[in-house]
Amino acid sequence: MILHPAFPVEPWCLRESTLHVNMLAETESVFALSNGHIGWRANLDEGEPHGLPGSYLNGVYEQRPLPYAEAGFGYPESGQTMINVTNGKLIRLLVDDEPFDIRYGELLRHERVLDFRAGTLSRRAEWVSPAGRHVRVSSVRLVSLTQRSVAAVSYQVEALDGPVRVVVQSELVANEELPPSGRDPRIAAALAAPLVAVEHGGLDGRALLMHRTKHSDLTLATCMQHHLACDATLHERHETRPDLARLTVGARLDEGQPLRLVKFVAYGWSGIRSRPALRDQVEGALLVAEQTGWDGLGAEQRGYLDDFWSRADVELEGDEEIQQAVRFGMFHVLQAGARAEDRPIPAKGLSGNGYDGHSFWDSEAYVLPVLTYTVPEAAAHALRWRHSTLPRAAERARQLGLRGAAFPWRTIDGEECSGYWPAGTAAFHVNADIADAVVRYVDATGDQEFDRLTGFDLLVQTARLWCSLGHHDGPGTFRIDGVTGPDEYSAIADNNVYTNLMAQQNLRAAADVVQRYPDRARELRVSADEVAQWQAAADGIVLPYDEKLGVHCQAEGFTEHQVWDFAGTSAHEYPLLAHFPYFELYRKQVVKQADLVLAMQLCPDAFSAEQKARNFAYYEGLTVRDSSLSASSQAVIAAETGHLELAYDYLGETALMDMADLEHNTRDGLHVAALAGTWIVLVKGFGGMRHRRGQLPSFAPRLPPALTRLTFTLTLRGRPLRVEVTPVTASYLLDGDGPPIEIWHHGKAVTVSAGQPQTLDIPGLPPQPRPAQPHGREPAQRGRPAGRPRRRSQS
Amino acid sequence: MILHPAFPVEPWCLRESTLHVNMLAETESVFALSNGHIGWRANLDEGEPHGLPGSYLNGVYEQRPLPYAEAGFGYPESGQTMINVTNGKLIRLLVDDEPFDIRYGELLRHERVLDFRAGTLSRRAEWVSPAGRHVRVSSVRLVSLTQRSVAAVSYQVEALDGPVRVVVQSELVANEELPPSGRDPRIAAALAAPLVAVEHGGLDGRALLMHRTKHSDLTLATCMQHHLACDATLHERHETRPDLARLTVGARLDEGQPLRLVKFVAYGWSGIRSRPALRDQVEGALLVAEQTGWDGLGAEQRGYLDDFWSRADVELEGDEEIQQAVRFGMFHVLQAGARAEDRPIPAKGLSGNGYDGHSFWDSEAYVLPVLTYTVPEAAAHALRWRHSTLPRAAERARQLGLRGAAFPWRTIDGEECSGYWPAGTAAFHVNADIADAVVRYVDATGDQEFDRLTGFDLLVQTARLWCSLGHHDGPGTFRIDGVTGPDEYSAIADNNVYTNLMAQQNLRAAADVVQRYPDRARELRVSADEVAQWQAAADGIVLPYDEKLGVHCQAEGFTEHQVWDFAGTSAHEYPLLAHFPYFELYRKQVVKQADLVLAMQLCPDAFSAEQKARNFAYYEGLTVRDSSLSASSQAVIAAETGHLELAYDYLGETALMDMADLEHNTRDGLHVAALAGTWIVLVKGFGGMRHRRGQLPSFAPRLPPALTRLTFTLTLRGRPLRVEVTPVTASYLLDGDGPPIEIWHHGKAVTVSAGQPQTLDIPGLPPQPRPAQPHGREPAQRGRPAGRPRRRSQS
Repeated sequence: MILHPAFPVEPWCLRESTLHVNMLAETESVFALSNGHIGWRANLDEGEPHGLPGSYLNGVYEQRPLPYAEAGFGYPESGQTMINVTNGKLIRLLVDDEPFDIRYGELLRHERVLDFRAGTLSRRAEWVSPAGRHVRVSSVRLVSLTQRSVAAVSYQVEALDGPVRVVVQSELVANEELPPSGRDPRIAAALAAPLVAVEHGGLDGRALLMHRTKHSDLTLATCMQHHLACDATLHERHETRPDLARLTVGARLDEGQPLRLVKFVAYGWSGIRSRPALRDQVEGALLVAEQTGWDGLGAEQRGYLDDFWSRADVELEGDEEIQQAVRFGMFHVLQAGARAEDRPIPAKGLSGNGYDGHSFWDSEAYVLPVLTYTVPEAAAHALRWRHSTLPRAAERARQLGLRGAAFPWRTIDGEECSGYWPAGTAAFHVNADIADAVVRYVDATGDQEFDRLTGFDLLVQTARLWCSLGHHDGPGTFRIDGVTGPDEYSAIADNNVYTNLMAQQNLRAAADVVQRYPDRARELRVSADEVAQWQAAADGIVLPYDEKLGVHCQAEGFTEHQVWDFAGTSAHEYPLLAHFPYFELYRKQVVKQADLVLAMQLCPDAFSAEQKARNFAYYEGLTVRDSSLSASSQAVIAAETGHLELAYDYLGETALMDMADLEHNTRDGLHVAALAGTWIVLVKGFGGMRHRRGQLPSFAPRLPPALTRLTFTLTLRGRPLRVEVTPVTASYLLDGDGPPIEIWHHGKAVTVSAGQPQTLDIPGLPPQPRPAQPHGREPAQRGRPAGRPRRRSQS
Repeated sequence: MILHPAFPVEPWCLRESTLHVNMLAETESVFALSNGHIGWRANLDEGEPHGLPGSYLNGVYEQRPLPYAEAGFGYPESGQTMINVTNGKLIRLLVDDEPFDIRYGELLRHERVLDFRAGTLSRRAEWVSPAGRHVRVSSVRLVSLTQRSVAAVSYQVEALDGPVRVVVQSELVANEELPPSGRDPRIAAALAAPLVAVEHGGLDGRALLMHRTKHSDLTLATCMQHHLACDATLHERHETRPDLARLTVGARLDEGQPLRLVKFVAYGWSGIRSRPALRDQVEGALLVAEQTGWDGLGAEQRGYLDDFWSRADVELEGDEEIQQAVRFGMFHVLQAGARAEDRPIPAKGLSGNGYDGHSFWDSEAYVLPVLTYTVPEAAAHALRWRHSTLPRAAERARQLGLRGAAFPWRTIDGEECSGYWPAGTAAFHVNADIADAVVRYVDATGDQEFDRLTGFDLLVQTARLWCSLGHHDGPGTFRIDGVTGPDEYSAIADNNVYTNLMAQQNLRAAADVVQRYPDRARELRVSADEVAQWQAAADGIVLPYDEKLGVHCQAEGFTEHQVWDFAGTSAHEYPLLAHFPYFELYRKQVVKQADLVLAMQLCPDAFSAEQKARNFAYYEGLTVRDSSLSASSQAVIAAETGHLELAYDYLGETALMDMADLEHNTRDGLHVAALAGTWIVLVKGFGGMRHRRGQLPSFAPRLPPALTRLTFTLTLRGRPLRVEVTPVTASYLLDGDGPPIEIWHHGKAVTVSAGQPQTLDIPGLPPQPRPAQPHGREPAQRGRPAGRPRRRSQS
C-alpha cells in the first residue's frame, strides 16, 4: 500500500494538491459530501477512473440472503445492503472528441478542496489532451444542508489554448457497474444491478428516472435540470432511457472562453408513497432548487454552516493539525446526521458502502454525544428513528424469548442483519446505549415532548428487556449472563461490567421516567411492581472484581484467562481477527477495544479514582485497538487518570483515522465514530466533561502539555455554554436568556449566570508513570518531528 | 406423524408384517444392511416407492461450499457430504407389462425380516396387479461381512395363478434422483447428480459402471453379474449406458413356476488408484463372489455372525423386548464397524445420509467401547483411521494457533467440516475421547504393536494439544478456557469438568506411553521437560465445584446461571434448539445431554460416591435429553448411584431409539451411538463395568427389579470373560489359554483363572429417592402395560 501524502494543514478546509490515482477510493471517502439524506462520494465528475462509485440515499437498501453453513433458530435469514443509487454527479467531457480522462494526456494540475465553512467540494484541473488540447475544468459540488432532497454541481470548462470543440454530457446513470466486491457470488448476484426501471422521461430540459429495488421494494426518483452559460453557440440534446438521462451540450470554445453548466439534482425515495406522488415530490424539490439558484444554494449552505460552527466549533492552540482534524471530523459528523431525519446514522455515514451501510451501537455511543451538545435536533431525529423501529425490536425480543425490545446489532431498517450472533445479537448493550443516548439528550435539552413520547417508550421497553435478560442469583444480586460487551475479542460472557452498569442506568432511568409521566405508564401497563423489579435489578447488579489484582474483571472470569502472547505476535498479524480464530481470541486476555474503560467514562460514579487508575493501567496492557472506536475511549480515561500525554497520543490516532487512513479501509467510507471521537477526546478528555443522569454536565478540564488553549461550546437547554481551558484555568460563559445553571468544575458545584464568565483554577496533578500497551501496539507519540503518527499496521 | 406399529418381539430378528408406505424412510434405515464399507438402505427391490434411496460407500463424499453470513478466520470453507452412489440393489419387475409397484393393484401380503444371525434382509410379497395377475415376489439380500466389496440379492418371482408374462430388470443406476433435501439451493446444486460417468461396459453378462465425483475427485466402480434359474424359456438382454447397466429377462411363467435370479454386485472406490486398477479390483471381487455362490455367501455370513454372537451376545431374562433390542443394536453396531477398515464409523453408520455421513466423537465415546470388548479388531481399525488423518489434524492445530493435533468435530476424510465453531471446533474434547479410546483398546487387548505405533502418536499429539490449549493460572492450577463440552446447550465455557478430566487422563496416558517406548519418544522429539509439563498440567487441572450446592459445576459459573423455565416450556418446544436461540440456551442451566454425568462414567475415580450421587441428582433435574446420546449415559450413573429403575427406564429409551423412532429422525439413518448405548447400559450400567487406565475392567453388577438374569461376554487380551449376573450374585468365567486375570467386583480384587467360574455376592443397597427430571422430560417408565415408551415429543 502506498501512503497518501499528508494533506496540508489548514484550519478550515482539506486540500489535495496532486491527484494520486491509486488513492482514489480513499479520497472519494474523505472528500465525500452528504446531508445525511443524500450521500455523494467524491468520484471525479467524469466518472472515471474511480475507486468506488457511490451515490447513496439514507434508507435505500436491497435485501440479500444471509447464508449459514449450519443454521440456528433465530438467525436472520435476510440481510440488507445499502445500494449505489442513480448517479447524479456525472458530467463527462469530450475535448476535440477525446474523453477527458486523467489517465490519458497530461494532467498539469489537479486540486480538490473540501471547504468546511462553504460546505462544498471544489476541483480545479488543467489538462492537455493526448492530441495537445489544453483545457481547464473547474467544478464545485454541494449536497444541500438546507434543501434536503437537493444536490448541485457547478461545472466549467475553459479552453486554454486556441479553439477547441468540447462536448459536455451531464447524466443520471442507474445501475452503474461496480468493481468486484469479493463477496460470496450469490450475494453479489443479488446486489448486481439492483434497480429496476419503472419510469423515465423529460420535459423542458428536465429529466427524470424512476426505479424500484427488486426485493426490498423501495421506489426512488431522481431528476435533474441544467442552467447553461456560454458565449459560444451551444448545441443541446436531451434524452432519457430506462437507466440513463443525458443532456449533451456541444460548443466550439475560443481560447479563454468558458462553458459553464449548473446541474441541479433532486432525489426522493419511499417504500410506501405512490409513483406519481414520488415523482411530484422530486420535481417540486427540483423547482425550488432551480429557483434558489446556484448562488442561492451556496449562500444557504454557508449560512447553515456558519450557524453550526458558531454553536459547535472547537478551537485549539498548540496543534494546528488537530485543529484541522477536529473540524474535518465535526464536518463529517454533521454531514452524517444533519438531515438524516428519522433515518439511521450509518457507521460510515453516507460516504461509502462499508459495513453494508449499517448502523451500529456507535451511533448512540459515539456520534450522538457530539450531536446532542451541538446539533441536538439531529440527535433527536436519530433517536426517533430508533423509536420508529420499536415494533421490530419488540418482535425480535419475542423471537429471542425476551420481553420489551431487543434492538438489532446492525441494521438499516430496524431488522437484525447480524449473521454471527456471538458478536451480534449477543451484544445486547446496544439497548442500554440507546437508553443512555435518550437520557443524555433529555438532560441536555430539557425536551419534554421527546421525553414523554419517544424517550419514555425507549426507556421502558429496554428496561423490560434487561429484566428478562438477567436473573437474581440469591438475594440482592442481579446477573446478566452470556452476553457480549463492546470488546469483540470476548463473547458470551457472564456479567460484563460495561453491560451490567449500562443496564443499571437504563433500569434507573426507566424508573425515573415512569414517575414523570404516570399517564404514559398506565398506557404501557407499567405497574408499581414492575418498577420495583427494575429498581431491585439495578440495585443488585453484579460487578465482578478481582481482589488479587485489584481490578474489575471485564466479565466474570476474564482476569483468570491466559494473557495473549503479545511478544509473539508480529505487526502484520493485526488486526488479530484476520489472523486468529475467534476461539483463540475469546478465551484469552486480549481486548479489541475499550470495554471496561468505556464503562468508566459512561458510568463515572461506579468506580473510585483509585479503581479507575488501576483498571485503566491493567486494561491498557491488554488493549490492541483493532477497532477504530477504541482510541478515543482510552484517551478520555487516560486524561482522567492523569496520563495527559498518552491521551494526546490517542487523540492523534482518532483524529487522523481517516485523514491518514490509519486502518487501511477509509476506501470503504469514513469512520464516523472515530471522527466524533476527536470531539470526545477534546471535550470529555481534556475538558473532563461527564454526564450524569438528571444533571447538566460536569467538567474537570486539564490540558496536555502541547495544548495551550482549548475552547468549545455546548448547547445546554438551548443556550450555548462556552468553555475555555488554559493550562491553569477554565472559564465558563453562558449565553442566551434564562436562569443561571449549575455545573461542576473538578468536583465543585459552580453556578453560571448568563453573560457572566466564571473563571476557575485547575488543580495540579502529580506526574503519573505512563501505562504500557501491548508490545507493538503503543500509539504513535504526537509532537515528534515526524508529525503524522505512523500507520498502525502494514497491509 | 403416524406412529409405526410395534415390531413383534422376537429374539433374533426384526420383523415387519405389513408395509406402511408412510413409514418407508424409517424402515429403510431400520432394515439397512452394511458391512461398514458398503451400505444399502432397505429400499424396496423395485426402487419405488421410496423414502430415501441410499447406497453408500464408506469414505465416498462430495465437497460442497460452507457459506457464512459473516466469515471468520479458520472457518472451514468446504464441507463434505456422503453421496448416494450407484444403486446396485435395484430389480424391477413387470407383470403382464404392468410394473410391480405396491401403490397400485392389491398387496395381499408383505413381510420383511432382518435376521441378526443370518445377516440378511428377506422380503416376501404377494401382489395382485391392477389387471388381476397374482404373483409372489421373494427376495433375500445381503451385504457380505466376509467379502468386503460384495453385496448380493437372491430374487424370485412366482406366478400364483395362470400363466403370466414377467419381465425382470436388474440394474445398476448412478445419479438416482433424490427427494428434495430442503437444503440451501447452492449446496443442493453442488450435490445433485454428483457422479460423472467415466466408463461403462459389459462382457459375458458382467456389467460395469465407473464414475468419479466432481469436486472430491474420487473414482468409484460398480459391477454386477447374475445367475438365472427358471424352467421356462428366458429372453435376456444386456445393456450399459453411462449411468445405467441393465439385465432384462423376460419369461412366460405358468402357475407355480418360479423365476429366480441371483445378483452379485461388487463395489470399489479410490482417491488414488488408477481407473484400470480399480476396474480390475471390482471385477476380481465379483469373480470371487460368483465362485462362492449365493449359498456360499450366505454360509460365510452366518459363520461370521455365529462367531460374533458367540463373543458378543448379551442375554437377558425378564425383558424380551430389550433382549431383541440389544441384539438389533449390536447387529447394527457391527454392521457400522465390522469392515470399515481404516475408514470412519459415521454417526449413522451407512444406514442413511443424516449428519451428511459425518463421524463425530460418539464414534470413540459410544461405539468403540462396545467394539473394543466384542470385535476389538474393528475398534483398532477405527482408531487407525483417526491416525491416518493425523497430518490434517496437525495442520488444523497449526491453523488454530495450537500445537499437536486438533481432530475435527465432524468429518469424513479428516478435514474439519463444522460450520458453527462454538458447537464444533470448540468441542476439543473429541481429542481426549480419541485418546481414551486408544487407552481402552490397548488395556483390553494388550496390542503392543498398536500401542507403539498408532496409539503412541495419537496420545502424544493430543497431549500436546491440551498443553497448548490450557494454561497455568498461578502455581498448581491448569485451566482450559473457552471450550465446549459434550452438552451442546452450553458453549465456550471455562474449565468444563468433562473436558478437563478427559484431558487429564489424556496427558497422563501420553506420559505413560512415552515411558514405554523411549525410541518412539525420541522420534517425536518428546523431551523429559515436555512430559513434565504434561504431568504438571494433569496434576493441576481445575475442577470447578459449587460449595453452596455441594455439586461440581459443569463448567465455571454454570451453577450460577438461571435455571431454564422448564415449567413454562411445552412438549412441542423440544428439542429446544429448534425453538430457542443458542444465546438463550447457553446462558441458562439446561443440559442437552450428559456432560458431567458422562465424566463420572469415564473418570470414575475423580468423584466420591457422595459427589456422584449429588451431582447425578442435580444434573438429572437439568437434563432434557435432546440428544440420543444422553439416555445411556444417564442410565449408567443412575445404576451406579442406586437408581436402578430409573436406569432401566433410560435403557428402554436408548434401546428403542430407532425401533420406535423416538427422535423422529430414524428416516435419516440409525442412531448408532444410541444403539451401542443399549450394550453400554447393560454392561456398564447393570454390569457396573468400568475401565481404568492400565487395568482390566472392574465390575459392580446390580440388576433392576425387572431383570432376573443378565449375561454378557467381554474379550480381554483375546480371551472371553463371561459375566453372568443375577439379582444376588455375579459369576465370572474366563475362557481360553493363559494366566489368571485380576478384575474387580464391587471394589474387591478378584483373580479369575481359566475355566474356573468365580461366583460372588452382590451387596445390597438401601432404597434411594428417585431424582426428578425437568418437567415433561421424565423417561417413560418401563414395565407398564403400554410396553413401548411414549414418544419423547410430537412433531
